[in-house]
Parts: sequence; structure tokens; C-alpha cells
Amino acid sequence: MTDETAPTRPEARSPRGFVDRRARDLAAERQILTAVSAVYERYGFEALDTGAFEYADALGKFLPDADRPNEGVFALQDDDEQWMALRYDLTAPLARFAAQHWETLPKPFRRYAFGPVWRNEKPGPGRFREFTQCDADTVGSARPEADAEIIAMAAEGLVAAGLPAGSAVIRINNRKLLNGLLATAGVSDERQKLGVLRAVDKLDRLGPDGVRLLLGEGRKDESGAFTKGAGLNAAAAEAVLAFTAAGGGADRGSVLNRLADIIGGSAEGDAGLAELAAINTALKNLGVTEDQAVFEPAIVRGLEYYTGAVFEAELLLETTDEKGHPVRFGSIGGGGRYDDLVARFTGQVVPATGFSFGVSRLASALRAAGRDLAAETRGPVVVIAFSQDDMAHYFAAAAELRAAGLAAEVYLGSSGMKAQMKYADRRLSPAAVILGGDEIAAGTVTIMDLVLGRELAAGISDNSQWREQRPGQINCPRNELVATVAKIVRGA
Amino acid sequence: MTDETAPTRPEARSPRGFVDRRARDLAAERQILTAVSAVYERYGFEALDTGAFEYADALGKFLPDADRPNEGVFALQDDDEQWMALRYDLTAPLARFAAQHWETLPKPFRRYAFGPVWRNEKPGPGRFREFTQCDADTVGSARPEADAEIIAMAAEGLVAAGLPAGSAVIRINNRKLLNGLLATAGVSDERQKLGVLRAVDKLDRLGPDGVRLLLGEGRKDESGAFTKGAGLNAAAAEAVLAFTAAGGGADRGSVLNRLADIIGGSAEGDAGLAELAAINTALKNLGVTEDQAVFEPAIVRGLEYYTGAVFEAELLLETTDEKGHPVRFGSIGGGGRYDDLVARFTGQVVPATGFSFGVSRLASALRAAGRDLAAETRGPVVVIAFSQDDMAHYFAAAAELRAAGLAAEVYLGSSGMKAQMKYADRRLSPAAVILGGDEIAAGTVTIMDLVLGRELAAGISDNSQWREQRPGQINCPRNELVATVAKIVRGA
Repeated sequence: MTDETAPTRPEARSPRGFVDRRARDLAAERQILTAVSAVYERYGFEALDTGAFEYADALGKFLPDADRPNEGVFALQDDDEQWMALRYDLTAPLARFAAQHWETLPKPFRRYAFGPVWRNEKPGPGRFREFTQCDADTVGSARPEADAEIIAMAAEGLVAAGLPAGSAVIRINNRKLLNGLLATAGVSDERQKLGVLRAVDKLDRLGPDGVRLLLGEGRKDESGAFTKGAGLNAAAAEAVLAFTAAGGGADRGSVLNRLADIIGGSAEGDAGLAELAAINTALKNLGVTEDQAVFEPAIVRGLEYYTGAVFEAELLLETTDEKGHPVRFGSIGGGGRYDDLVARFTGQVVPATGFSFGVSRLASALRAAGRDLAAETRGPVVVIAFSQDDMAHYFAAAAELRAAGLAAEVYLGSSGMKAQMKYADRRLSPAAVILGGDEIAAGTVTIMDLVLGRELAAGISDNSQWREQRPGQINCPRNELVATVAKIVRGA
Repeated sequence: MTDETAPTRPEARSPRGFVDRRARDLAAERQILTAVSAVYERYGFEALDTGAFEYADALGKFLPDADRPNEGVFALQDDDEQWMALRYDLTAPLARFAAQHWETLPKPFRRYAFGPVWRNEKPGPGRFREFTQCDADTVGSARPEADAEIIAMAAEGLVAAGLPAGSAVIRINNRKLLNGLLATAGVSDERQKLGVLRAVDKLDRLGPDGVRLLLGEGRKDESGAFTKGAGLNAAAAEAVLAFTAAGGGADRGSVLNRLADIIGGSAEGDAGLAELAAINTALKNLGVTEDQAVFEPAIVRGLEYYTGAVFEAELLLETTDEKGHPVRFGSIGGGGRYDDLVARFTGQVVPATGFSFGVSRLASALRAAGRDLAAETRGPVVVIAFSQDDMAHYFAAAAELRAAGLAAEVYLGSSGMKAQMKYADRRLSPAAVILGGDEIAAGTVTIMDLVLGRELAAGISDNSQWREQRPGQINCPRNELVATVAKIVRGA
């Protein structure tokens, strides 16, 4: 270091809340996106990619979970003084795009999209300011079949991504049901209705008794802190609780019957019931089983955003936390029907419905379900380089492996054999290829099976027997190189 | 519209310089990235994805074309007052990442990356502020084989992306050659050397006579404007011109021989010659033909960035502009060796070499070469919806088509037959499926071949004969639906 340069050297670090993703995690995410995209395209949804920026006035404030207080965007002023902001989800850009091109779009407009979104929040463990979402939406169809199709597609997408059949379920509700019930009970104040939704949303954590208090006057928690309730009378509170208990794992037809008994009477409630019934018919037509999708009136899913059907995909597997305690994994995605996005721009109410999931969240769910896509990722076969004079031999070996579809490279650093083996290990290589002077003279090749080597190191294989046989080191004729390596890479 | 909402409605428009990409263009870009990624992974390069933002001090100013005056980034201040900026290329984040993790990375570190980059420039026709780049770099190897491998990989990647073999060539030069020649001629002033590079860079446009003037005192253009020259004496200028003329389509070995005659003498020139000779040997070992890669001393490729080998991929096809005049398509990507990126952070000089291309530029090159990936994209098969009572029939048909891997959907809007056919046409559907009451009763299905319909509309097929046969409308037994549609989608 010289005195002149030292003081000006920046520190190499990524901004807070932004992460670098290496090959293994990327491979898992790409596999998910490729599989899900294929499903969405088979359902007739077209890909759309909008830019990272939107004008701030066009972006608006449409986050599903408006409850989070410090919600923010990354915004800056363009040189013509207009404010632009990075998109915080994929729905707001869809709304802008649909409004901008509505006249010429095929209608209903069905698109899927994936890509990074940015939220200017306080970063923390597992809480990033940039993450990848994947959305599918139908814009311009009010038909319940459009909701059912989104649900069918989401269910098929989760399986295609690698979730074992039966390990996740999509829970469906309709915002109109509770609204109808409250209308019948004489509750019309929007803030009171919001309080009811907030109370129901705590059912998982507080149970019916806790929620009953929050539906009524309020609840004091263990610390003594008091949360003001929604102020329903006892009859209305019991009706709400009966409503939220109407799911409980029954088949969709039975839940519909129970709901009809609880809800009926108001126009909005009847509309909600009719929509759910039509969704059920369409789900049957689409081949969505009772295992894949259930009606669950306890689902809230966002507070002020959805206007009709809402759905939430949940991983059913019980997983364990760091201390080994069983925990529910919970939601891996969700969506529903919303009608106000395009109207913001055009004044024209255009019905829309969609489903969204976070890609790294789904990757975590896959890991929890025993499918660690990242762990299945391997590095390239490494051809060890001993001598400059023999580079032609090394490159020829690598080329043969590549031509057979196997990732392979010649080591191009300047270190010796030991460092090269360490390099191959760090790259998670399945094999190292050794073409020393002896091998070249004899027309053979030595192949180190690093998969077996790792198993031995991890104590996975019984190694007493293997050791005597010099496990993982194979000398074979040079013309058997590709076949031998292929056997290691693809499993014996 | 009401008076309250009308004044607050934002205009639906995307920010200047940002574009929405629809299915066709996206399909083309994804096909390119998938094909090129597969090649890069087969060469042992691992995927890396860094965040959109870097701290401004870490980002630095490392654009290859530092000549552009209004170069800018999108920057904003984080809540801890540190300035962050969106990456303007993929090399600066690589430098930051490599410096940050150098101790633990496998070395040489070989990564490829693709993703959006952002430049805060004045947008214009064909000039965007967000575009997708795809890079591959080897960090930590000074060996010419590393350059050769990048070149081999780039050549294979272009073919994998769809460029017909022989339609593109990679031209290779080494910055040290001209430096050596100038050293021998007694030119050591950096500004003068930069002037020489600028002059050589204009060879295509001005020819040798124009460049001779720019190498000497200067040149007056047609408008009378005077450009000051690099100030070389006549002998030095002729040596530079002889150097730039040493390529001219000869095979790599011959160009090397010619260059040895012109360059020899200086340490830097000799080093450049030795590197090119080693690159040539490695290219042969890697199976890169003379058609795919040539030595071309006239290549400049950026001015202050590269330190050794430089390469540029060029489309050889002559294309025509809007007025039908023949034009050279020009560069579709490039790269070279650079040694200063990591040193900015750590003080440690780490040699690196890489290749980069813009994805939409390559898509344009593919179109120019007759491979319009976007035009090959099709929409889904549309099942026409006549009656709510028959939805089960429609969904069953769509499900069968999907199960056979064909994209299909039931129309879920609220319009009649005519609008549905128009919808299918806008979606670029290959076929529409008609299951009216008559078909259902008879156990048949009517299929409209929209591919043929479009050919007829475009006058591509001879239609006198076809018309009599009611072309494009097929009535077949219901159980032949999938086979009949598959024949249309996949070509008869």
C-alpha cells in the first residue's frame, strides 16, 4: 500500500438489506421460476416484464399489507423533476400497464410476471429490501371461474416447483361473506369492520376466546396492555365466531352448506355465497381436489385490498425451529380479487384476480418439505493442470465431457495439485480428472470420485471396506473417460 | 366521473427510457439467456446474482466507454446517509463481490451473471435507461488460456443462442501491442497514447487517410471543424497504420507473423505478442476455428479500461436500414482483460478477463440473421365459451390439451363468439376450439386452424383451392381433439 491510494480505498460491502446469491440458491430459484412459468403459460397466461421504476404518482400505495407502518419505497427525482420509485410489488405496475394499454389489450388480459421488487424498510435477519416475486393475474373478468383458474394454477405451480402433492393446501374465503354477516348484524361502520377483520386475523394466535374479547370491548394481554375491541354486541360476536369455525377441514360442499346457514339474508352475503359456489363448481371442472383447495372462512389475507375471493397457500408440514420446537411453516403465497387498481387511472372499474408468491419463501418451503433444490446443485468436473506442455490433453478431455453435456473445466490458476483438489472441492465438483505424464503415456486417465469422497468424509458410507479398494480413485482407459465421469455425476 | 376523484387521477405512463416487454420479446430474451447460461455452466462458470444497489463509493466509475460525457447512475441516499446507486453494469458489482469474499472464494473465481443494469442517461429512440446484460468473467487467472476460454465460450454461446454458424466472428487484439509499438517510437505520454487509440477507433469511418491525419497534426472534416491529432511524427503514424492493417482476414498464425515484424523490440510489445501466441494455441486446443475467431489489430474496444487482450464479437451479415441501404450490423458484444477492479478495494492486483453482451442487442442480431425468436412465439389455444351450462365441457377440453403440453385456456370474458375469435387472434393463438351444443350432442368438436387462417389472410398460401375445402375449420370426433390441435401447433 502507498500513502496516496490507501485513504481513498472504498470498503467492499453490499448495501444493508441486499444479498449476493451464489450458484446453489440461484439454481433453486431458477428451477422454481422455470417450472411455475411453464404451468402458467400452459394455462394461457402471457409473460410481461415492466421496468424497475414507475412514476411515484402511478405507483400509489397499494400494498396488500397496509398495516406495516414503515412501509416505504426507494424514490428519486428524475432530471425533469418527476418523482420515480422502484416498484414494491408486481401488481401496481400491472395496474399502470393495463390502464395505459387497455383499449388494445386482449381482454380478459392474463399475464404472469416475475422479478425483483424493492421495499425501503429497515433490514433485519431474513428481512430483505430486494426480493423476487412471481405473480399471475387475470384482469377484466368478474367471473368466479377466473378465481378458480388462478387457484388451480397456483396449486399446479406449487407441485411443479417440487412441493410433494398433499404437502400444501390453498385456503379460500370471500370477503363478501363477513361483510354480509356484519350487514345483517347492523354493522356498517368501515372502521368497525376493519376491527373485526383484525380480530379474526388473530384467531391462530389467540384462539376463539381471545378473538371474542377483541370482537367485543377489548382484550388485556399477559403484559397488561389493553387492545380496544371492535365493539360488536355478543350476538354479532358469536355469529362471527361461528362463521370462522365453519371450515375445519370439511369438504367444500359441506362448508358451503354451513356458510349458507350462517350468512344468508344480505345481498352482499348472498353474492359471496354464490361466488364461492361457482368457484367450487369450476374447481371441480378444473380437477382441483379437496386436498388441494378448501374453503376456510377464518382466512383474512390483507385488510383493505381485496374485494371478493381471497386465497392463501399454506405449507401443511410441521417443521422445527432452531431449538427443535415444532412450528407451522405457514403461508407460502396468496392472492384474491381486487377491483380498484385500474380505476385509479381511468375511473373505469375493471375486475381483477391474482396470486403471488415470494420465490425465496417457496424455496424455504421446498427445503422444509425435504426438497432442497440448492443442495442438489453440483459444480463442474475439474481437469487438473500439471504441465503447460500438456494443456492440449486437458482441454481435449474437458471438451469431450462438455460435448456429453457434463460441465467441465481445465484448472487455470497457478497453484499445484493440492490447491487444485481443494478448488474442486470448493466448487462442489463431482469429479477431478487427472492426466499426468504417466496416464498420457499409458493411454489412461485417473478420475477422483469426489461425491464418494464427500460421503466418506461425512461418514455416510461405511468406509472400512471402501478404503481397501481405494475408493473414489478410478484408473481407466482414456476412451472411457466420459462414461466413467457420467456414471459418477448421474449416480451409479 | 365525479368531481372529487377526477383531478387526482394519475396518468398511466411508464417513466422515460423504461419499456414494458410483452410475451414475444420476453420469450426471445429468455431463450437467449437459457441457451447461453447452459453453455457457460458447461464451461464451469457459476451463476452469481448481486443486488440492484451498490454503495456509490464501491461502484466507482468503471464504465468501459468512459468517453460518453453524460454518463450517470441512479443514486439515492439511504436512511443512514450513505449514498447507494443502481448498478450500471455487472462488472463493478463483481469487483465488489470478489474483493469482499476473496479469501474464501474458489480461485480462479469464474462466474457468469445476467440481469438488468441502469444508466441515468437521456433516453432516446433505441436508447434505454434499463437493459439486460449477460457477462462471464474469470477473476484470478493471468493465463492467456483464460482469455482463450472466454472467447471460446462466447463463440459457442452465440451459436447456442441461435446465430447461424459463420454469421458472427470474434475479433481479438491486445492492448500491449500498440503500447509496445508506441514505446518503440518514443511515445510515452498517456494523453498522446489515448489520442492514438481514438484515431485508430475511427478507422472504419474515416479510412487510413483520415486516420493518418488524426495520428498526425489533425483533421478538418467536411463541415470545416478541426479535430486536433495525436501529434505522432510521420514514421510513427505509418507504423501505427501498418499495425492496424496487419489483420485483413488472414489466418491467426499469419497475422501473428506479420505483427511480430511490426511490433518487436519493446518489452510490452513482446509480452503482447507472447500472449496472443498463447491465446492462439489455446483457441486451437479448444476447437475454435479460424472462422469463429480472428486476430484484428484494428480493434480498440473501449479506451482506458482494458490492459491486455480485447475482443469484440461482430455480426458479419450485411443488413439494410429503413431506407433499404446496406449497413453493417456491427458489434454484438465484447470484452477483454482488466486488472484494476479488485485493486481499488484491496490494493491487491488481481488479473481478470471477461465477455459481455446486451441481450436485446443479440436478439436484434438474431433477427438480422433471420432467426426472429419473438416471431416464433405463439399464444394459447382458446376454447370458446358459449354457455355457462357447458363450462365443464370447455374446462375438460382445456385440461386435456394442457396435459399434452399444449397451452390452452377457456375464454373467461363476457363477450360473444365474434369477440372471442378476435381475442384468440390477438393472443396469436394457433387454434380455437368450438364445443357448441351441436358438437357436444354429436360427440364431436370443431377446431379453427388460426395458423392457416393467418397465412391465408397474409396471402401466403394459395387460397382458391383451400377455400372450397373450408380451410382451417376441422370437425372431428371429440376424442381426436388433442391429436388434431397438436398437428396444427407443431406443424402438419
